[in-house]
Amino acid sequence: MSQREQTPLQARLYTVIFGTDTPLGKWFDLLLICAILVSVSVIVLDSIDSFHDAYGTLFQRMEWVFTAVFTLEYLLRIWIAKNRKAYILSIYGLIDLLAILPSYLALILPQTAPLLIVRLLRVLRVFRVLKLMSFLHEANLVAGALRDSARQIFVFFSMVVTVMVVFGCIMYVIEGPESGFDNIPVSVYWAIVTVTTVGYGDVVPVTAAGRSMSALAMLIGYAIIAVPTGIFTSNLLRHRSGPPLPLNCPQCARAGHQADAVYCRFCGTSLHTDQAD
Amino acid sequence: MSQREQTPLQARLYTVIFGTDTPLGKWFDLLLICAILVSVSVIVLDSIDSFHDAYGTLFQRMEWVFTAVFTLEYLLRIWIAKNRKAYILSIYGLIDLLAILPSYLALILPQTAPLLIVRLLRVLRVFRVLKLMSFLHEANLVAGALRDSARQIFVFFSMVVTVMVVFGCIMYVIEGPESGFDNIPVSVYWAIVTVTTVGYGDVVPVTAAGRSMSALAMLIGYAIIAVPTGIFTSNLLRHRSGPPLPLNCPQCARAGHQADAVYCRFCGTSLHTDQAD
Amino acid sequence: MSQREQTPLQARLYTVIFGTDTPLGKWFDLLLICAILVSVSVIVLDSIDSFHDAYGTLFQRMEWVFTAVFTLEYLLRIWIAKNRKAYILSIYGLIDLLAILPSYLALILPQTAPLLIVRLLRVLRVFRVLKLMSFLHEANLVAGALRDSARQIFVFFSMVVTVMVVFGCIMYVIEGPESGFDNIPVSVYWAIVTVTTVGYGDVVPVTAAGRSMSALAMLIGYAIIAVPTGIFTSNLLRHRSGPPLPLNCPQCARAGHQADAVYCRFCGTSLHTDQAD
Amino acid sequence: MSQREQTPLQARLYTVIFGTDTPLGKWFDLLLICAILVSVSVIVLDSIDSFHDAYGTLFQRMEWVFTAVFTLEYLLRIWIAKNRKAYILSIYGLIDLLAILPSYLALILPQTAPLLIVRLLRVLRVFRVLKLMSFLHEANLVAGALRDSARQIFVFFSMVVTVMVVFGCIMYVIEGPESGFDNIPVSVYWAIVTVTTVGYGDVVPVTAAGRSMSALAMLIGYAIIAVPTGIFTSNLLRHRSGPPLPLNCPQCARAGHQADAVYCRFCGTSLHTDQAD
Repeated sequence: MSQREQTPLQARLYTVIFGTDTPLGKWFDLLLICAILVSVSVIVLDSIDSFHDAYGTLFQRMEWVFTAVFTLEYLLRIWIAKNRKAYILSIYGLIDLLAILPSYLALILPQTAPLLIVRLLRVLRVFRVLKLMSFLHEANLVAGALRDSARQIFVFFSMVVTVMVVFGCIMYVIEGPESGFDNIPVSVYWAIVTVTTVGYGDVVPVTAAGRSMSALAMLIGYAIIAVPTGIFTSNLLRHRSGPPLPLNCPQCARAGHQADAVYCRFCGTSLHTDQAD
Repeated sequence: MSQREQTPLQARLYTVIFGTDTPLGKWFDLLLICAILVSVSVIVLDSIDSFHDAYGTLFQRMEWVFTAVFTLEYLLRIWIAKNRKAYILSIYGLIDLLAILPSYLALILPQTAPLLIVRLLRVLRVFRVLKLMSFLHEANLVAGALRDSARQIFVFFSMVVTVMVVFGCIMYVIEGPESGFDNIPVSVYWAIVTVTTVGYGDVVPVTAAGRSMSALAMLIGYAIIAVPTGIFTSNLLRHRSGPPLPLNCPQCARAGHQADAVYCRFCGTSLHTDQAD
Repeated sequence: MSQREQTPLQARLYTVIFGTDTPLGKWFDLLLICAILVSVSVIVLDSIDSFHDAYGTLFQRMEWVFTAVFTLEYLLRIWIAKNRKAYILSIYGLIDLLAILPSYLALILPQTAPLLIVRLLRVLRVFRVLKLMSFLHEANLVAGALRDSARQIFVFFSMVVTVMVVFGCIMYVIEGPESGFDNIPVSVYWAIVTVTTVGYGDVVPVTAAGRSMSALAMLIGYAIIAVPTGIFTSNLLRHRSGPPLPLNCPQCARAGHQADAVYCRFCGTSLHTDQAD
Repeated sequence: MSQREQTPLQARLYTVIFGTDTPLGKWFDLLLICAILVSVSVIVLDSIDSFHDAYGTLFQRMEWVFTAVFTLEYLLRIWIAKNRKAYILSIYGLIDLLAILPSYLALILPQTAPLLIVRLLRVLRVFRVLKLMSFLHEANLVAGALRDSARQIFVFFSMVVTVMVVFGCIMYVIEGPESGFDNIPVSVYWAIVTVTTVGYGDVVPVTAAGRSMSALAMLIGYAIIAVPTGIFTSNLLRHRSGPPLPLNCPQCARAGHQADAVYCRFCGTSLHTDQAD
């Protein structure tokens, strides 16, 4: 089931469908992005009542064409994949499946119609193409810094959520159901709306004590936005400059060399002793 | 009353209850976290009217079980603690007490029922376990940078609060009670809601002058969010790069040298005495 | 059509109108800024009903004076420009044209009156003068860092928009038309309002599931604001420290050396040839 | 009128009132802060109707006591100041005057009663004491970085305000008076509320085109918050590390020394040639 031998036809299709280097591969990617975006637009427009009434039938027909095209593409991808199981179980493989499955499901089981919205995950397919193209380096830098920050941001977020739970409970006691703080989940929802500075205004304190507490919550929310920003910025800076080279200069023992340095910047000795002389 | 000798049983229980290294200690921590989370969920769900009506009696019984378990655990912790007074008066000891006290109080004095909400502080107990586990380093870095930033952020916040008070007073004069700016505290509450960019919309300016002033307040709030972020980020960067050199100058004993320094920047002595000659 | 010879009069006017170094050129710039700001204020005030009723005729007369002045200035600029085509097709040339065109259009075709608002683009003309004056360096630094960040921020924003689309669709399914989530575009509008922490409160979730989802959207929005900030800050820091050393290695011609480097980190040659040996 | 000779009594009072080093000076500062805070609290509480009705007469009497005390203090400060004119015209001198003037004005001219609110500027007097105490260094660092950022942030803000004006005008044309976008100032107010992510919700778009434009405005506001944060952070980092010393080492010509360095950190030569040898 692992790496199979491809027939010449499979190999050629592979270059077009999975590859991006050939002109034909680029055209295929461009066409695919267009198809995805038009198909997503159709679903979005179909959700608007006036458009649905006017063009509902047209939209439905277009949708079936797109489902047919994407189904064909999915089957082709399986057929030509070097490792079929790996492709089917990969994130992209699953998204490719989820993009077509709901249409068939809704045909067989009409009660699964709400799942049709899942087809909108097609928009994620655009990233497959983008990823393979030119934004790789930038995305990697950002992703790397995010991965580095993940643990710290998790610690930070568990504290923030605790602060929100505590504030929500305090407000539930202070304000009570008559101000809209009906129960603790609603109060915590209010705390999240407030601390993140979203501030819908659908649940607001009305008593003096409640307003004082919420003023405190806002100030805390305003201050702690600095924490994830600081964590991510410092990780990004570290990521970008790269690890300074673990080894010290073999002659003068000084460290602090850049990642691509070959010779010590203080005494000029080769940093890679195995390559030296 | 200080460091007592523990009996073998106490010592063994100590390893399980306070420690995290043994498999049994890990299981105890995991069970405790589950009990805390379930108990907190029960309190939260009980605050929702429909759940309270349907499962109120069940929730009350579960609550008594949890109270009994946590009371037992609290007494055990006191019994086996190496320094009982220190444990009882520590933050964790007080939280452990506050997590069970309201249930007993509400039994004796029914008018203290609103205090039952204090039991939600149980959620803070989860941090005890987390702290002892793997997130120590990340939390320390963030906490260290926050401690460093504390004074600056205090100075910054006293200025922000002054700005808010001044804006609140100006709006109280401009808008007056007919727009909802009933008195100075409400106006200051409005200023906090506005400058922190929460923007509930429960108190909004309606006159042209008031809207101009609040536009100014928003722009100021938008700009000064940069200040705590900048303070924290620069402190985090400084913290992360670490103390410049662990060693002090062998001659003048002063520290603060850059990582690649060879000679003390105060007295000119070589910093690397073992390499010097 | 390229670089023409200017007559002495054209050359002298050029120094006044396009230049900023001579006293006359500064006076011209100052007068122009005043005219632009007064003309913009007239348009703004005219949009207020009470002012329009009281001073409508005066405003209209002033507007015609400004249109005449700006038309004269536009024609002068074309006449004296060293390269006429380049000026007319430049951003500033187009803004200069758009600042006067709607007035004439509204005279000929009354149905184009709404386009009169385009005259407000006159405010952009102020930047022409500012750009030529003293803020060049600061603006360049910021613009440079923004240009550097553009690709990363594009990648980041396409992810954020995808998150918003996905959240919008989920909320459309969860909340539905009876809560104001009428169709997918409205739901995506709600998601943008929420994730950017604007939080108008015109479309808000009312069900428990919807509130949970929106709490998640808020927390994500609160966390990811850190990303563009971090990207821009690190780019600004890199920009500001400047290119590491103006000189390239005299032997291998490669650049990118740190400020305190003595030897080329690629080939080990001394970077300071005049001081070497 | 410049630096006068002080009598012994004046000199002694000067140490107490202007100074902070003696125990008596510290007590005076503490008492003054208490008087200011109580006096401000009285004004704030008096603005609340229920408190005004219950304690109005008491508040008025207290206010007269505070006015008398602050008047005495103001006259004392003038009497003992080393340079009277400089004190009276300084920021602090003006705030001291503004803190008492409205009370007397309201006595003579009852129609100036709204000016009584100006007395709240007393809160700014607290900063005089704080400034003289321990927060000097932190405030200086922040203020220095803000001063450095001022020009860049001015450039940035003029661009943001232009964006807001342009968005306001577009929305005025798209939405029009029937959606609450009554005139251009209101539309610009909406744009400020939106781009700064405050989002009151008192003026919101209702048409599809208006919602699309405002979604764009939100995304722009969300992205550009990064700019002042980045500018301030990078300035703070530069400020903190200090200017690296303008001079290079006289022996090895290498730069990059810390501000308080005495000897070159590369070759150990004294950096201050006039002190060398």
